[in-house]
Amino acid sequence: MYAAILAGGSGTRFWPLSRKARPKQMLRLLGGAPMLRETMLRLAPAVAPERCLVVCGARHAREVAKILPELPPGRVLAEPTPKNTAAAVALAAIRIGHHDPRALVAILPADHHVGNPAGFRAALSAASKPAKEGYLVTLGITPSRPETGYGYIAAGDALAMADGHEVRAVSAFVEKPDRARAEAYVADGSHLWNAGIFVFRADVMRGELARHLPGVSDPLEAAAARLDDPAALAEAWSKVDAISIDHGVMERTNRAAVLPVDFGWSDVGSFASLPEVLEADESGNVLVGDAKALDAAGNVVHAASGRPVVVLGARDLVVVDAGDAVLVCPKDRCQDIRRVVEALEAEGRDDLL
Amino acid sequence: MYAAILAGGSGTRFWPLSRKARPKQMLRLLGGAPMLRETMLRLAPAVAPERCLVVCGARHAREVAKILPELPPGRVLAEPTPKNTAAAVALAAIRIGHHDPRALVAILPADHHVGNPAGFRAALSAASKPAKEGYLVTLGITPSRPETGYGYIAAGDALAMADGHEVRAVSAFVEKPDRARAEAYVADGSHLWNAGIFVFRADVMRGELARHLPGVSDPLEAAAARLDDPAALAEAWSKVDAISIDHGVMERTNRAAVLPVDFGWSDVGSFASLPEVLEADESGNVLVGDAKALDAAGNVVHAASGRPVVVLGARDLVVVDAGDAVLVCPKDRCQDIRRVVEALEAEGRDDLL
Repeated sequence: MYAAILAGGSGTRFWPLSRKARPKQMLRLLGGAPMLRETMLRLAPAVAPERCLVVCGARHAREVAKILPELPPGRVLAEPTPKNTAAAVALAAIRIGHHDPRALVAILPADHHVGNPAGFRAALSAASKPAKEGYLVTLGITPSRPETGYGYIAAGDALAMADGHEVRAVSAFVEKPDRARAEAYVADGSHLWNAGIFVFRADVMRGELARHLPGVSDPLEAAAARLDDPAALAEAWSKVDAISIDHGVMERTNRAAVLPVDFGWSDVGSFASLPEVLEADESGNVLVGDAKALDAAGNVVHAASGRPVVVLGARDLVVVDAGDAVLVCPKDRCQDIRRVVEALEAEGRDDLL
Repeated sequence: MYAAILAGGSGTRFWPLSRKARPKQMLRLLGGAPMLRETMLRLAPAVAPERCLVVCGARHAREVAKILPELPPGRVLAEPTPKNTAAAVALAAIRIGHHDPRALVAILPADHHVGNPAGFRAALSAASKPAKEGYLVTLGITPSRPETGYGYIAAGDALAMADGHEVRAVSAFVEKPDRARAEAYVADGSHLWNAGIFVFRADVMRGELARHLPGVSDPLEAAAARLDDPAALAEAWSKVDAISIDHGVMERTNRAAVLPVDFGWSDVGSFASLPEVLEADESGNVLVGDAKALDAAGNVVHAASGRPVVVLGARDLVVVDAGDAVLVCPKDRCQDIRRVVEALEAEGRDDLL
């Protein structure tokens, strides 16, 4: 099996830790290694670094290589411009498939958390069986709560068994639901979180891309032998449509399958989600770095810059010290952190962006 | 007139800005000069630096001289140990009175704010008249709100007029009142805030100290000619009782008088009091330094370290970045900041104390 790690994100939800030059996947958000590196380490017992590649934005390519020194040269694929996930998946499938047409490929986001890495690797292994048979397999996370922040996959009929997992058809991809629907999804047992993790044969994905997304497939397939050449890639890339792999392929293909899995997954979508993946103190405070909570409850305090951060008597706040900037907001306002970034942009505070 | 600035405080209410080596009076709490320097600058048009002295803790003497370079040598009186305000006032009165027995002396705390410095100087000038006649004059601030955090002076009969101010007898010094009593005090017009500002003749204060506080007066008067000599001062000081000038003299003397004044005074007792003395934005946020409040109201954000501090969507918080440590607490929990200091002490975090 090969793996392609998608590291093209440039989100603003983790300001002031995240910046244009240092997006979420490069952060030590959970106190350990950068999330990108955690992704590769999690994979390593199943897929050696020699069989990995990373697709990322051009401005991040050098930093990615620094974070992953074990990656052989040429395995960081720099997207000349952002073109959404279908283009990234196509680039990976063509690059790998050009040398090994029927290679199995796993697609993995660079910025997610997995609580049970062995379970994760077992799931990849289980997914490889239907993938070999020609399915585009997506891993569907068994929901543990009525989450309204994730997309869902509606699972259909059972197709087969793989290593004790049931492989099921995909009925539909469902956008983020409201609360009532999310509760129904948890109860019905047939809706799974869409984690953006896929396993497929390179030739099958290339065929489906050619069928459903010629605007992505054609320019890249035409340059398949020359994608190592930055000029050739840039020229082909400029003609590529920007669309997500879910909308462009997974919702249209009749080869989609879903493997229900449960390995402690979180997309770590905001500071407010850190309590899902990090241990809290007895008052529910998640403290990263030199953080202290006194008579305080439910706070997320990220003090990874080395300087102490003390929260006294407060509830349900996010407090983040990035070393060169500090942010304080209530946990339930994390979705508005992008407004801070917009305000700084409007003020021309490039030093903070 | 001479002035003695009392700079002996070592409070913990402004952690993380304040430290053992950098108490409140040395902080640029309001964004301008250190409060001690502001005190001297406010005084300068009325009392030249040559006629000022500063009483402070021994460990702060060098820093005080640095903050006040215009102070002639020998005008920083270092207390060998803290002995409360009566000893500091006695030291100042004896030092000044030894050379100029009937000198007028103003006693001024180093860490208060005055919104109207000209009004403050006019009040000192008005107080000098009854002081010359032998009164120990205290300035009583006309209360602008039912404050429960201050001591009050109950004013008695009118004694005289001075520059348009009415000089009144002191009926009593009143400890911090409860809310109902504070409201009555504001309404009755005869209760004034005790600001710890005094004007007196050196010989009168020395006489009252000798009468009411021989445990303070006797050791210092015995060494009156040698108080410049650190060894002589230390020896005398070791015998001095520790008591406040209010309890020790003002409550006992029959020479007390109070001058009702109103010059925008605040003792700036905590971060929560900054809105009394600094302008707020239209949402009631007080922002010092590179501080930003977005969709946030009633916050005090002190970002004087130079790094930006952003508060998003929060209400009534205090957020302080001292450069080497960050504190977040609700405004109404500022009185508990000493608990943070205690916790750091218990952990041996001397770098933060």
